[in-house]
Amino acid sequence: MSLLVTGSIAIDSVKTPHGQLDDGPGGSAVYFSFASSVLVPTRLVGVVGEDYPQAFLDQFKGRQIDLTGLEVRKGSQTFRWKGSYQGAMNEATTLAVDLNVLAEAGPKIPAGFRDSELVFLANTHPALQVELLGQLAAPRLVVADTMNLWISNERDALLKLLARVDGFVLNDGEVRMLTGEDNLVLAGRRVLGWGPRFVVIKKGEHGCLLLTGQGMASLPAFPSDTVADPTGAGDTFAGGMMGTLALSAGRIDRDRLDLGLLKQSLVVGTVLASFTIEDFALGRLARVTRDDVDRRVAQFRDIVCF
Amino acid sequence: MSLLVTGSIAIDSVKTPHGQLDDGPGGSAVYFSFASSVLVPTRLVGVVGEDYPQAFLDQFKGRQIDLTGLEVRKGSQTFRWKGSYQGAMNEATTLAVDLNVLAEAGPKIPAGFRDSELVFLANTHPALQVELLGQLAAPRLVVADTMNLWISNERDALLKLLARVDGFVLNDGEVRMLTGEDNLVLAGRRVLGWGPRFVVIKKGEHGCLLLTGQGMASLPAFPSDTVADPTGAGDTFAGGMMGTLALSAGRIDRDRLDLGLLKQSLVVGTVLASFTIEDFALGRLARVTRDDVDRRVAQFRDIVCF
Repeated sequence: MSLLVTGSIAIDSVKTPHGQLDDGPGGSAVYFSFASSVLVPTRLVGVVGEDYPQAFLDQFKGRQIDLTGLEVRKGSQTFRWKGSYQGAMNEATTLAVDLNVLAEAGPKIPAGFRDSELVFLANTHPALQVELLGQLAAPRLVVADTMNLWISNERDALLKLLARVDGFVLNDGEVRMLTGEDNLVLAGRRVLGWGPRFVVIKKGEHGCLLLTGQGMASLPAFPSDTVADPTGAGDTFAGGMMGTLALSAGRIDRDRLDLGLLKQSLVVGTVLASFTIEDFALGRLARVTRDDVDRRVAQFRDIVCF
Repeated sequence: MSLLVTGSIAIDSVKTPHGQLDDGPGGSAVYFSFASSVLVPTRLVGVVGEDYPQAFLDQFKGRQIDLTGLEVRKGSQTFRWKGSYQGAMNEATTLAVDLNVLAEAGPKIPAGFRDSELVFLANTHPALQVELLGQLAAPRLVVADTMNLWISNERDALLKLLARVDGFVLNDGEVRMLTGEDNLVLAGRRVLGWGPRFVVIKKGEHGCLLLTGQGMASLPAFPSDTVADPTGAGDTFAGGMMGTLALSAGRIDRDRLDLGLLKQSLVVGTVLASFTIEDFALGRLARVTRDDVDRRVAQFRDIVCF
């Protein structure tokens, strides 16, 4: 089943207790597509400026990522983010953000992508997410991510988005902020009441929680002794999740989502994210093979299941 | 296999966003034994003052808890703790502590308890934990808990204890404080280097992580929509864990601990703790049956395993 992601393409500078990387490749659509393309072909939609390094574009080569929807906009500059992590590295401190091209007109979905069946709308202004969704013909399953900024400042637009998507992904702090509910099960149920058929609450090093009308799934993170840089873990997770759903083509029925399939998709997302955090930027993720994923899924089963 | 617990017996006052309870029953040995006795007979060792209410003693009736080691000390007052929880209730704020009888001479292990095979030394001064251990004939498996106070102030005594126990239980903040290591896998491994054959890192609402020389296990907490009061969850968890190990008598060999059995014990501990937090003090835990545990273990498997 065709998988499309819309999201940011960034130049990131990150400092953690384990080192730092200046001007590396980043962005939600990049982490997502590097992860999902380990499993299935992925269509990418996003905009960069003319400063986006050729070396970063070259990294996409040899991967199943269709860059037809990647616009290099003349006269514009690429989105830049600079952040740091301390201690247990659960939360990034943003040191600088230059929205640049992200503050201009949004990307367009190319004609050849309009028939995409599975769609992930990575974090951006919720009104733009809705607009992108409107450019698609008849997607079978749409999942969106968000961030605290839109929860605080664009709540109405966000609720409109929620009414249009099948799945919603956000972190524990965000779902508490959005719902005013501290208990994550109750918070997740409240989000379901706004439209989505499932909600995935990401808890960083503590794993994730899935709620649907049919039941729940909860997973810890993969316990790792090598955490160099958590940047991109959440987007990698989403890429692994959507890639797994795309692999199972025939089983996707938005009116009767299979809880077991959704759980399996979280497992693959969790495992892919555990590779991303082992190195800065795409250092480890870019080298992950399908075999690596399968092996680590088996390890994860030994660690978690009883 | 005979199971013994030494620990505190308290009068607790607790306030949470869901209500408050003044002068209720509490203490590590109480939560532990209420949990373990759902599974196996449990020997309790601890001291209270003459103010300890008869109504609290009556709550032990009809349970498989042997109170031969419960000393009611004349002229002494029971340990009292007053605390509160805010927001997501991950951490208690201690408002008042009266050590009372806990600041006097420790309890004695009765002659009839000296042959205990499985022993849990709940949190108290590590030197007292070692002394209690010395009163036992030949335990087959000893597990201890601790708290931040001893990590800060009695590190040497704690390291001596660690060299004498088979298992060690502590929370994520404590293991980071003890080892100076933020990564929980590395922190746990460092603790293993000090003596124990296994270490269990409790993460509250985020579950637990087990490390042994043979491998790891990681579990989320049971996702609950009813969390009234987290007090005693950790001690309940330990009671469920040790009770499960006690049930499996023949399989306990301290030199070759079965990772699957340890994991199963964490599952039961997790499930029992999920009952405790549904009400204040012993309100829910005291009514839990073996069938309740089995049913929720099955639910937990559906939520976690893949």
